[in-house]
Amino acid sequence: MGFSRSVFRELQKISGNPYVTKEKEERLCYSYDATGISYLPDVVVFPGSETEVSKILQLASKEKLIVVPRGTGSGMTGGSVPVKGGLVMVTTRMNKIIGVDEDNFIIRVQPGVIVSDIHKAVEEKGLFYPPDPSSASVCTIGGNIGECAGGPRAVKYGVTRDYVLGLRAVLPSGQVIQTGVSTAKGVAGYDLTRLIVGSEGTLAVVTEITLKLLPKPATVKTMAVLFDSMIKAASTVSGIMKNAIIPRCVEYLDEECLHLIRDHLSFDMPDNIKALLIIELDGDLDTVEKDAHRISDFCFSCDALDVILAKNTTEAQALWEARKALSPVLYKIAANKINEDIVVPINKIPDMVEVTQRIQRTSGLKVVSFGHAGDGNIHCNIMYDKSDKNELERATKAVEELFNATLRLGGTITGEHGVGITKRRFLPIEIGETQIELMRGIKRVFDPLNILNPGKIFE
Amino acid sequence: MGFSRSVFRELQKISGNPYVTKEKEERLCYSYDATGISYLPDVVVFPGSETEVSKILQLASKEKLIVVPRGTGSGMTGGSVPVKGGLVMVTTRMNKIIGVDEDNFIIRVQPGVIVSDIHKAVEEKGLFYPPDPSSASVCTIGGNIGECAGGPRAVKYGVTRDYVLGLRAVLPSGQVIQTGVSTAKGVAGYDLTRLIVGSEGTLAVVTEITLKLLPKPATVKTMAVLFDSMIKAASTVSGIMKNAIIPRCVEYLDEECLHLIRDHLSFDMPDNIKALLIIELDGDLDTVEKDAHRISDFCFSCDALDVILAKNTTEAQALWEARKALSPVLYKIAANKINEDIVVPINKIPDMVEVTQRIQRTSGLKVVSFGHAGDGNIHCNIMYDKSDKNELERATKAVEELFNATLRLGGTITGEHGVGITKRRFLPIEIGETQIELMRGIKRVFDPLNILNPGKIFE
Repeated sequence: MGFSRSVFRELQKISGNPYVTKEKEERLCYSYDATGISYLPDVVVFPGSETEVSKILQLASKEKLIVVPRGTGSGMTGGSVPVKGGLVMVTTRMNKIIGVDEDNFIIRVQPGVIVSDIHKAVEEKGLFYPPDPSSASVCTIGGNIGECAGGPRAVKYGVTRDYVLGLRAVLPSGQVIQTGVSTAKGVAGYDLTRLIVGSEGTLAVVTEITLKLLPKPATVKTMAVLFDSMIKAASTVSGIMKNAIIPRCVEYLDEECLHLIRDHLSFDMPDNIKALLIIELDGDLDTVEKDAHRISDFCFSCDALDVILAKNTTEAQALWEARKALSPVLYKIAANKINEDIVVPINKIPDMVEVTQRIQRTSGLKVVSFGHAGDGNIHCNIMYDKSDKNELERATKAVEELFNATLRLGGTITGEHGVGITKRRFLPIEIGETQIELMRGIKRVFDPLNILNPGKIFE
Repeated sequence: MGFSRSVFRELQKISGNPYVTKEKEERLCYSYDATGISYLPDVVVFPGSETEVSKILQLASKEKLIVVPRGTGSGMTGGSVPVKGGLVMVTTRMNKIIGVDEDNFIIRVQPGVIVSDIHKAVEEKGLFYPPDPSSASVCTIGGNIGECAGGPRAVKYGVTRDYVLGLRAVLPSGQVIQTGVSTAKGVAGYDLTRLIVGSEGTLAVVTEITLKLLPKPATVKTMAVLFDSMIKAASTVSGIMKNAIIPRCVEYLDEECLHLIRDHLSFDMPDNIKALLIIELDGDLDTVEKDAHRISDFCFSCDALDVILAKNTTEAQALWEARKALSPVLYKIAANKINEDIVVPINKIPDMVEVTQRIQRTSGLKVVSFGHAGDGNIHCNIMYDKSDKNELERATKAVEELFNATLRLGGTITGEHGVGITKRRFLPIEIGETQIELMRGIKRVFDPLNILNPGKIFE
């Protein structure tokens, strides 16, 4: 096991000299993801085709080399970090949109396509691909498949899993499979498509993806709703859904977030504002306008301070840019953050707000919350300084408290970021050893040599 | 191996004497499904709880007894037929609706609940469970999970898989697992929930199901569109979808079907009618009315003979009852039918109409087509007399031709009925041996003794 000179030459033969590197500065670039956790790979390869992916995996099987597939590394749980070294396989060269089939509402893409490029390509043709993780402008669709990415629009439209009709993928042995269908329905055998979605690159390397599309909604309306209490905002969320309206997004920002993004907003914030909801509706113009009125009335009945309708796309975009700026801007509070994408039933969001406030008090660390309240998916950010041992300990304890409370409320420890390495030790608490044993068994079926992205999710 | 007197007594101890039987007349009742294929089980047990299911499977593991789970046996591919004998486990006693959670839009049910009882229970509360297989009034939700049932509304709302958030299930060892979540999102480990959905009772026995619900649509509008040509009707279907309207149903009935259900219809059929589309829209009243007009105009532009809007629920219901009566009424044409639920891309439906007409000519057998044209899922019924060896041969050849043509058109051999035993030998043609090997491996992980519903899907 290891990267001998001859293995390196084999890789060069497969992908071409410019696309194989063992230079340290380049390996460093592919050693980490958005968690900041870094492990140095031995080699980085940029395959240009499915055939190359297959040959590399054949070689890896023969030589028992570890292979870690990745896109642009925007993951939140270390899923693409080479914790045991080995070969990092970067899919960004495989970035072709193979075709948009307008008659049948599907798009076929390679894994390295940037998600927002999919949005552009289909919206040009009057079509719509709903999943929109906040990182859409930088993340690859292959990564979205690996982690089953979500985003704000999941409230109405669901997550990546709900749009993947079929896959081409290379097994660790180098064998190529084609799963699923190109049609709306299909139940031929076990659902390997959705088994690979969310498997964090541990079962196969995806080389082609067939996605379902929808017609592009005629109208989109965005509104900001201001509250003087986090609990009031949280209670409003479940009320909106009960009114038989499903907005496409219901985002929640707590007081701390609002301080951070104040300058990005196109409206003045009253001093007593403690929470903000961003609500977005889409569909037929008349329906959207009627629903916007109903939601506005309902929010006022829940004691909202104000409801501000974006007058045009520019105002709506400003609101979203402020929201999407949040994740990086948090570092103004502390050098490090632990971002946990817990989910609770929507009527438990007020309880979760109380939990985070309690954790903030007991840990002495700032806990900043924002996220996709419409589906109960809150991003709780525990802010701390990693180099301060005491803060690190308190942060670790805070995460445990957060997860335990989440599970007590009937929720899950991960809505859309996956398990990766950062949640590995908590997985047994949520799903139990029997399920993990089944998952280990499935991993062995796909990857008997344990060469594909080992050390993730479990073990 | 076998059902000794002591094993029988053990079963009686677990479920109680009235719920365990080896009487031939009772075993006969549980020997077949809607295909009519019959294999006699050795014993029939009706467990009343998850604990009983677990104990029975523990006993089965110890004694290496075959267990075949089933609901009401309305399956279309022999999935619940005990091809190797053994114990048939009927889940119909486990028919409790555990609870509807209106705040969080979920329902929890036991596997034996009849699907239309779920519809009733949630619609009473202003909620909506979209999947509606034609057998909804008799089939169980457990069976729907097993086969990943669809139905007419899948065009807009997707299939069973899209509504299953989580499961409780008993492994062949008797161990109980709880998969998935009770929340809208969740990605904690491999997606065992969707692996079990559509696995045809070969991986685990489902004992509790958490389903996602939607708000009930405010308005439903049903229309019948008449054509003098099957090809014209088929071409219209893909045109409707391209107009950025997604009806909740687009059903297709060919000429032969129309003859059969003539008496059930609430309107007079002109003599030259050769095909009928049933189109149903739902949503906000204004939008639905506007879309109904747009669809009507579009259908006329596609040379429809007439567009008839159902004036009220009774008229709409009459149309649906006629449609749902089709499957049984086909036996007026011939003693036996092979009902294949193939799917093709929607713009290939006209080609598929030509294929079925050709097969009808070359086989000399009636091929009757109807189904969910909106998602390309056509039920092709090859009508024949099983006792006539020559007809049987021609029917078998017709199925082969149909499947080959379906795959050539980019489709799948099963949209919602599953593989069971009737499509087993065709599965390798669609998905290939490498994928089947993975599925066999997964089966071994869940069921190393191969005691749970063996002989289905593959092998």
